[in-house]
Amino acid sequence: MPLVQIDLDRALMKEKKAEISERLQQAFIDALGAPPDDKFQIFRPHDDGELIADPGFWGVERRSMVSIQVTMVHRYPVDAKLDLYRQIAKNLEEIGIRHEDIFISILENGFEDWYPGKIRGE
Amino acid sequence: MPLVQIDLDRALMKEKKAEISERLQQAFIDALGAPPDDKFQIFRPHDDGELIADPGFWGVERRSMVSIQVTMVHRYPVDAKLDLYRQIAKNLEEIGIRHEDIFISILENGFEDWYPGKIRGE
Amino acid sequence: MPLVQIDLDRALMKEKKAEISERLQQAFIDALGAPPDDKFQIFRPHDDGELIADPGFWGVERRSMVSIQVTMVHRYPVDAKLDLYRQIAKNLEEIGIRHEDIFISILENGFEDWYPGKIRGE
Repeated sequence: MPLVQIDLDRALMKEKKAEISERLQQAFIDALGAPPDDKFQIFRPHDDGELIADPGFWGVERRSMVSIQVTMVHRYPVDAKLDLYRQIAKNLEEIGIRHEDIFISILENGFEDWYPGKIRGE
Repeated sequence: MPLVQIDLDRALMKEKKAEISERLQQAFIDALGAPPDDKFQIFRPHDDGELIADPGFWGVERRSMVSIQVTMVHRYPVDAKLDLYRQIAKNLEEIGIRHEDIFISILENGFEDWYPGKIRGE
Repeated sequence: MPLVQIDLDRALMKEKKAEISERLQQAFIDALGAPPDDKFQIFRPHDDGELIADPGFWGVERRSMVSIQVTMVHRYPVDAKLDLYRQIAKNLEEIGIRHEDIFISILENGFEDWYPGKIRGE
């Protein structure tokens, strides 16, 4: 049960939402071994000026930000997270989203912190 | 100071926001002993296709997602969280929101991670 | 790499977004020693009734809520967080936002939980 929240430019969303959704999910499958049907995403389209990212922090040349916030259970080693970043960047770059514009952050919780429509075992 | 963020269908929000707000708060009161006036909620209405949830993950038959993200202090045992899920599901089901469509996630922090308009003790 | 998410009234955003953005960033610089170019913010404008805050919790007289959610690395002592709150309140009050209306929450993660357009060291 990762929950993936994507804040992005409205025009980009209209044009590529279905592809972004599918390719993000594939990254979780490939990098973390997530089940294909463990897919929960929230897209939030933004108008000009609502997404603010420094154009050069860390030596990265940013043009606009695609923010990807991941909430997931604390269980993956650092290497798996790095692999997730690489997969997301690769998958989105294939549909024209520069990896420099991708901004991913992860927050973790426990198994008991999720209710996906029912309580486990009930 | 839980902060509760609700991402939901725009039409559902227009129709039932006041009830959802009140019933969510009641669940925190009943399950966690939250003070009635400790109420901070953000509603985010969504257009078609922005909320993506697998229609069958975990054997739950989903139609649309009502995402409820809870940020709260790390102090509640697992049983209290399960009770919170049950109360939310029950309270929202009474106003026509299927429990299968409810998707709750919790993230926790510390007492020092909140500023509700003033610093404690000042 | 703090990520700062601001949920606020649409009219307030239209009028003061640039100032809020700059003054929030200055607070991170002054209170936490953040680099000036470590600036990542998401503004989310809201219509009436979407932001719900109790008008009196903790003895604070609220009129409307400016929610500021901070995601940042777990590395700052409590005193630095309190200083961050004070700086944000002071900086925003100078442009007409009452400190009583500011609602800040912090969630923390690790260095490995960020991808700002590239992987560190690659």
